[in-house]
Amino acid sequence: MAQIERTFGPAKEKTLTVALGDDAALWAPAPGRETILTCDWFLEDSHFLRDKHSPDAVGWKCLVRAVSDIAAMGGKPRCFLLSLALPSTLTGKWLTTFLRGLRRASRKLGCELAGGDITRQEKVIISITVIGEVRRHGAVLRSGASPGDLVMVSGTLGEADLGLRELRRKRGIAMATDIVLRKHLYPEPRLALGQWLAKNRLATAMMDISDGLSMDLPRLCAASRVGARIHANSLPVSPLTTAADAQELALHGGDDYELLFTVARRNARRLPRSFEGLRLSHIGEITRERKILLRTKGGKAVPLRPGGWDPFRRSDG
Amino acid sequence: MAQIERTFGPAKEKTLTVALGDDAALWAPAPGRETILTCDWFLEDSHFLRDKHSPDAVGWKCLVRAVSDIAAMGGKPRCFLLSLALPSTLTGKWLTTFLRGLRRASRKLGCELAGGDITRQEKVIISITVIGEVRRHGAVLRSGASPGDLVMVSGTLGEADLGLRELRRKRGIAMATDIVLRKHLYPEPRLALGQWLAKNRLATAMMDISDGLSMDLPRLCAASRVGARIHANSLPVSPLTTAADAQELALHGGDDYELLFTVARRNARRLPRSFEGLRLSHIGEITRERKILLRTKGGKAVPLRPGGWDPFRRSDG
Repeated sequence: MAQIERTFGPAKEKTLTVALGDDAALWAPAPGRETILTCDWFLEDSHFLRDKHSPDAVGWKCLVRAVSDIAAMGGKPRCFLLSLALPSTLTGKWLTTFLRGLRRASRKLGCELAGGDITRQEKVIISITVIGEVRRHGAVLRSGASPGDLVMVSGTLGEADLGLRELRRKRGIAMATDIVLRKHLYPEPRLALGQWLAKNRLATAMMDISDGLSMDLPRLCAASRVGARIHANSLPVSPLTTAADAQELALHGGDDYELLFTVARRNARRLPRSFEGLRLSHIGEITRERKILLRTKGGKAVPLRPGGWDPFRRSDG
Repeated sequence: MAQIERTFGPAKEKTLTVALGDDAALWAPAPGRETILTCDWFLEDSHFLRDKHSPDAVGWKCLVRAVSDIAAMGGKPRCFLLSLALPSTLTGKWLTTFLRGLRRASRKLGCELAGGDITRQEKVIISITVIGEVRRHGAVLRSGASPGDLVMVSGTLGEADLGLRELRRKRGIAMATDIVLRKHLYPEPRLALGQWLAKNRLATAMMDISDGLSMDLPRLCAASRVGARIHANSLPVSPLTTAADAQELALHGGDDYELLFTVARRNARRLPRSFEGLRLSHIGEITRERKILLRTKGGKAVPLRPGGWDPFRRSDG
């Protein structure tokens, strides 16, 4: 942990009293707030490729991925724990660049390093636990959607997957200057939007899209015991590719970290078309019937089959 | 996560409001208490061997290892997050038995599953984050030892390492009925002792011994900016092996999860010889001179060289 402690320095958070260098960290949220806890894997070969992804992007994205779950509850990230395993050959330049990307994300997101554990393994394995806070009883859960609610998403869908495809085509480490790669390499969690929706009690249910709309929407619907009907025409597709391709990517592409949320119909006019420059799209409705349907451009309603990414799809229910 | 959620069931903790099945868990400690956060790796080939350790013992020990850091601050564990990666061939019986051991530890330690992330990898990789609580300003840190303080340890030292040696000699999965293997397979965190020492303000500094006394004592001393002198004659060695061997194991053996703590000399008589059947041994003193010395049985003082287990000893300072 020595290099990590040097990179991040001592804790600045007043609410984080003992951080690096002891057995554990001490944490207390601000008065009237409760703590949000979440953890996420970020693994070589599953979430990134050592010969394609720069360690800087790996550092950035592993934290963003976990912080996105805090955004999805309307919360504010405060600190994180880093569990890092890596081969000894990567403890030099790779680790330094990784920590630089991680520190940049940490500062941008206001999420301080609180501790961690480092060990040696053949592959790079990262597990991040993020601690956030939210107003007591103010968290937006997956389970609050009701029939008739509007189904909304932020930003565009499918660009991260488009970037991954582009990255696979190219040789060597990808450069962040390529606009097609930007969202895949350096996604941003929708923290301000999540907090605004929670504060104004506009979202009845919310989650982030990490595995793709066709995988994540059924999870929100299952938690709320409802179904949904999505309109293919309304999907906020990427302008960076062809129309047919863009729709497939918007339905099934993972890694976008956009917010999927539902809003009661009576509150629809309180929703802006965009929030701080981020487009908000009405893509469908919540239904009583517990099916997930896609209304195609031709007007037919067909079942929306999950096509996103799930490491256990073939072996674990 | 489906099987995990079935095994553990819904949260019983009143302070843990949303647990499994949402983006994140919500947590608030009892009034007047602050939150302790810690995370620990538990990896195949580094921390256990798939052909030697039963998945039940792996489940038990991965939680105990992380909870031990809470004990070392005088805190109480409340809930944990499980990040689990495993090969698809182990998602059947291995996973079921692993979860059974984990659940038994979870119940015994009063530490409830709050969430997690599961994915697929070639090897079993576990990262556990434990959330605990401690009275505000009541946590015992590593940094409070002063010259003249007594150096104390709980229990006996070296038995876990002795068990590991025995396990390596044997063929196949080890049985928990062998007394030599017990402490290696099913260690217990010293929660009651840690809480008692913290409550009575007896420990000036404290940590758990996970990498061996010769590795961990220098860490406590570095945090407190002091040195220490240890008496070889006073080490609580294991009765299960020969004297010479037992001393080496007591100095350098890891995985014991006993508590190492310091006590001001004026409070020495407030310390019992044992606490709830657990022996407490006075093994040395804190010194102003920042060296770690061992007073041998012959009366000579020699530097105590770190000989415990550190995955990065050869490659990372």
